[in-house]
Amino acid sequence: MSTSAFARTTIASPVSPSRGVLSPVGSDAVRISGGFWADLQSLNASTMIAHCDYWMERLGWIGNFDAAVEGRLPDDRRGREFSDSDVYKLLEAMAWELGRQANSDLEQRYSAIVARIARVQEADGYLNTMFGRPGQAPRYSDLEWGHELYCYGHLMQAAVARARTAGEDELVRIARRAADHVCEVFGEGGIESVCGHAEIEPALIEFGRLLGEQRYVDQARLFLERRGTQVLEDIEFGRQYFQDDVTVRDAEVLRGHAVRATYLLAGAIDLAIEDDDDELLSAAERQMRRTLARRTYITGGMGSHHEGESFGADFELPSERAYSETCAGIGSIMANHRLLLATGDSFFADQVERALFNVVATSPSEDGRSFFYTNTLHRSAPGVVAAADEVSPRAAASLRAPWFAVSCCPTNVARTVASLGAYVAMSDGQAVYLAQYVAGEVSAETEGGEVILDVDTSYPSEGVISFTVTSAPSGGAELVLRVPGWAGGATVQVDGEASSADPGWARIARRLTVGDRVVLTLPMATRVSRADQRIDGLRNQVAFERGPVVLCVERLASEEFAVDDLRVAGEPRDTVDGPVLPVRAVTHHDAEWPFGAAVGASPSVEASVFEVPLIPYHRWGNRGPSTMRVWMPVG
Amino acid sequence: MSTSAFARTTIASPVSPSRGVLSPVGSDAVRISGGFWADLQSLNASTMIAHCDYWMERLGWIGNFDAAVEGRLPDDRRGREFSDSDVYKLLEAMAWELGRQANSDLEQRYSAIVARIARVQEADGYLNTMFGRPGQAPRYSDLEWGHELYCYGHLMQAAVARARTAGEDELVRIARRAADHVCEVFGEGGIESVCGHAEIEPALIEFGRLLGEQRYVDQARLFLERRGTQVLEDIEFGRQYFQDDVTVRDAEVLRGHAVRATYLLAGAIDLAIEDDDDELLSAAERQMRRTLARRTYITGGMGSHHEGESFGADFELPSERAYSETCAGIGSIMANHRLLLATGDSFFADQVERALFNVVATSPSEDGRSFFYTNTLHRSAPGVVAAADEVSPRAAASLRAPWFAVSCCPTNVARTVASLGAYVAMSDGQAVYLAQYVAGEVSAETEGGEVILDVDTSYPSEGVISFTVTSAPSGGAELVLRVPGWAGGATVQVDGEASSADPGWARIARRLTVGDRVVLTLPMATRVSRADQRIDGLRNQVAFERGPVVLCVERLASEEFAVDDLRVAGEPRDTVDGPVLPVRAVTHHDAEWPFGAAVGASPSVEASVFEVPLIPYHRWGNRGPSTMRVWMPVG
Repeated sequence: MSTSAFARTTIASPVSPSRGVLSPVGSDAVRISGGFWADLQSLNASTMIAHCDYWMERLGWIGNFDAAVEGRLPDDRRGREFSDSDVYKLLEAMAWELGRQANSDLEQRYSAIVARIARVQEADGYLNTMFGRPGQAPRYSDLEWGHELYCYGHLMQAAVARARTAGEDELVRIARRAADHVCEVFGEGGIESVCGHAEIEPALIEFGRLLGEQRYVDQARLFLERRGTQVLEDIEFGRQYFQDDVTVRDAEVLRGHAVRATYLLAGAIDLAIEDDDDELLSAAERQMRRTLARRTYITGGMGSHHEGESFGADFELPSERAYSETCAGIGSIMANHRLLLATGDSFFADQVERALFNVVATSPSEDGRSFFYTNTLHRSAPGVVAAADEVSPRAAASLRAPWFAVSCCPTNVARTVASLGAYVAMSDGQAVYLAQYVAGEVSAETEGGEVILDVDTSYPSEGVISFTVTSAPSGGAELVLRVPGWAGGATVQVDGEASSADPGWARIARRLTVGDRVVLTLPMATRVSRADQRIDGLRNQVAFERGPVVLCVERLASEEFAVDDLRVAGEPRDTVDGPVLPVRAVTHHDAEWPFGAAVGASPSVEASVFEVPLIPYHRWGNRGPSTMRVWMPVG
Repeated sequence: MSTSAFARTTIASPVSPSRGVLSPVGSDAVRISGGFWADLQSLNASTMIAHCDYWMERLGWIGNFDAAVEGRLPDDRRGREFSDSDVYKLLEAMAWELGRQANSDLEQRYSAIVARIARVQEADGYLNTMFGRPGQAPRYSDLEWGHELYCYGHLMQAAVARARTAGEDELVRIARRAADHVCEVFGEGGIESVCGHAEIEPALIEFGRLLGEQRYVDQARLFLERRGTQVLEDIEFGRQYFQDDVTVRDAEVLRGHAVRATYLLAGAIDLAIEDDDDELLSAAERQMRRTLARRTYITGGMGSHHEGESFGADFELPSERAYSETCAGIGSIMANHRLLLATGDSFFADQVERALFNVVATSPSEDGRSFFYTNTLHRSAPGVVAAADEVSPRAAASLRAPWFAVSCCPTNVARTVASLGAYVAMSDGQAVYLAQYVAGEVSAETEGGEVILDVDTSYPSEGVISFTVTSAPSGGAELVLRVPGWAGGATVQVDGEASSADPGWARIARRLTVGDRVVLTLPMATRVSRADQRIDGLRNQVAFERGPVVLCVERLASEEFAVDDLRVAGEPRDTVDGPVLPVRAVTHHDAEWPFGAAVGASPSVEASVFEVPLIPYHRWGNRGPSTMRVWMPVG
């Protein structure tokens, strides 16, 4: 690893590994100019970031830093023990957004918050509004639940974002002092423990990459190796809650708290890369593959238990009350993106796309002012609209809410959306790899020189994606396109000549020069999907997908028939207004006891068939109280 | 209501309403001499009660009372905030057991514990080891979670058991002082709130019935009317957790924490009876009927969420991780038994039977030294054997455990089993009603005089139950037998003459005299049951029941094929060794992604059919780690 500071600053990416099959080109090399993700980035810039800022000022979570300086803690402290982290995630979102496009108001606001935080950091680098003052619990006295290291992790990720988009500033210096402090206190001979919530692990490694500080990586290694050796106290949820049951090297599958588990896996992949540790990388890959094969919802959502916000057993994936926390979807993206870079397997890019369209895009409302914390796949009774000016419990499993007592998700969505460009393109040195499809411009350094592509598409509304080479090195450019796993029958056309492209990477057969045009066509007919029969809650049901988007049936409370009163009566049909599904209505007959020889097997089924819209799952719940199903019963 | 103390002492029943269609005959009028419940009562007497006593001494939960006297609180306090209640439930179990059969060692032990408690009660009647001392939170400072009134409730129920089986003693006097104190502090003009965990409501009413104290009933009325008016603080689980969202009079269905909800309903029924309040009785009956029709497992278990230990939405009853807390099953028995007495509808006796055989009997292990806290209906991977000498988390969803950090269930099972006789027989004045079938002797007062019946049966192993009249008044005895809802095709034979008997109450057509013999024959072929189609987790699956007993397939970890690898391949077959089920084995093929057009719909199914045992659900988990299903997939 280079020892020069800011060795890789030019790669504007949340993760920039020192080796791997693919290297990210960075969000600054990707301009998303229109379409689905551009719209969400605009909404983020215009509304979501300001919404998070507003709520955290209003509730005093940012004010905690002022209260610390003014000696008003612990009396005036507001929010949960980890509220500092949401301020850092807001700063990370602002940093990525400022890297995307200049905005002097936002720049001032960012700097003002950083200045308020800076005053709180103590001489030895310690920084937290919850611990260590008279009347507060001592520093690091509650590693299970205190989240101090978790908060530093988000501080460092924000600093990485800032450094890679704008260069060193006060936030980077704050984070560096915090990182040094962590190494001092938790290094060899220090406190031999870990944080109850993984996050410092990937953050320390990335911050070490940024600054060329090997000791940050070394500290992350200590944390990663300690966890799983029962260094934390046992708790009612069991040690698997914070992955302290089995070491990350020995684990077979993700388990326990889904956000903790995915963040930890991201850190393990980072360490495997920095340490050239193929055994650890294999362990991480094995865990993610089994988790995807057995513990992930069709949306890409992870975690089926409300209790402990945790993964369930293999194939325990009921649609009802699917927890599928928005942050766990983001954690999955973090880990899958790292596996994509490390292994080059496009399967992991498929998973990033799935979670982006069906978890991250599902969380915010169309107006950017409310969010899903959990993402159920079935709502049998209409939910309740959260009051616009109240804090909601985190897992009300109702409609989107403006803010939560535990409000990790809104800021996580904001930072992810602002940094979306970083997930679009990669390079293996020779070729440019397109992993995600957005309208705009992509540039990438290859060994031959810079390649610039114009991308024209309305994906995922339509399946045609056109690439025009606007700059290429003298030897021409190599282009590799991802054909998603669902896209059997895709074609690639190079300057008018079409050929079929199987799922996986489609490498364009010849070197491209300026003016060359490549058209990837993905089949966008609505698909009928079934589930592994070991998932009990999905027997005799089908789901519908169109391109990368999971569809659902939504019935407003005002409409005739709730979703549970409908049965699939034929194949979905694509129309100009979107796909529709033929259904029959059923009439359920209540029994005084709902089990028995004659009970319930045959509700009355109407003969007449009618069609209902299949809408993108990420759009559900935007029109008021409704019932909703992703998986629809057949017959 | 009578104002004389111990007006109804002679009815040895946990509940003895002042009116209703049926009156309990009391457990002292029922001698259970053999068979299923006699065995469990023996196990309770020999092992379970002592086991609970041992653990609560060992962990210091009983010792908390000594520590209080010796000024060692709060430093030496052990257990959760409600641990006093488990000591009271142990005393209740001991009292019922001593009523069932004399035992001088147990009598001494009971008295010794009562003496240790007595010393802790303060001059004004306050009694709790968790609150009110220097260094402890003030009395009643945390009604949401403090459980002080809940503890009094269990104290009073223990006192009721003692008074009705042995007469007034120190425990009854302690409880009376506590009840007076509660009326003083929480009466009109006092603290206008309720306890976060309902229990004091039915307890105060029963204690009032026992002592003829109307003001205890009046105080219960205040508690019942306050709850639902948002008198408690809101919490993350929402106010429905402690039923403070809607009044008990306005509610449509049970919701929130299932034990709290069922205990509260029991109190509402008691109040409706004492107040002659048919509107309240209708409200309670409506809630229970809807809960049975839509929110109850086939086992009679209630509560599908681990989070908040709560009811789910209508038809949200997945088998996986069914919470079905043992105590909620007992709460359901409490409420259903009261509805049986109030309305005379045998449907409620069916529910008592269902929960007794499939929840209460499931909790304890065959050796009486470990217990299920939750009662899942599906275990896809073998659980872990709890260490014999360790405290387990309450909802590990693994095998039975000897004791829990929250250990409400073992003492609840012990007190219920010891008082089982109280659920067997009733009288409407004219006739003796047999609600549950046990081998032994039943006596009942009717208007004509005492009736004594000898009952001979090996039910539920077999379906033949013989009643011989050994004593009858001069005008003869009227006998009414419950034909369970599942028992279509039952017959009743009176002195050799048989007739068919439909589900419901079968009233014997003629008055019986000494020596008359009545034989009820219930069909005991194994039945195949289906579920209301609105229960998503049970689509395309069937369950098996034999008599009142729910069956399951259990596969030991050492056996070939886990339960999830089996498909029903025919009708169950009854053999001399019990029922067996023809199945086919399937081979599942792991996909890297378990959803898609071709995925999972058709695992390989073996052609060969073999038979596996269908065992009583209440027996599962006694032979070591295993997989288990109540609902088996078809085809």
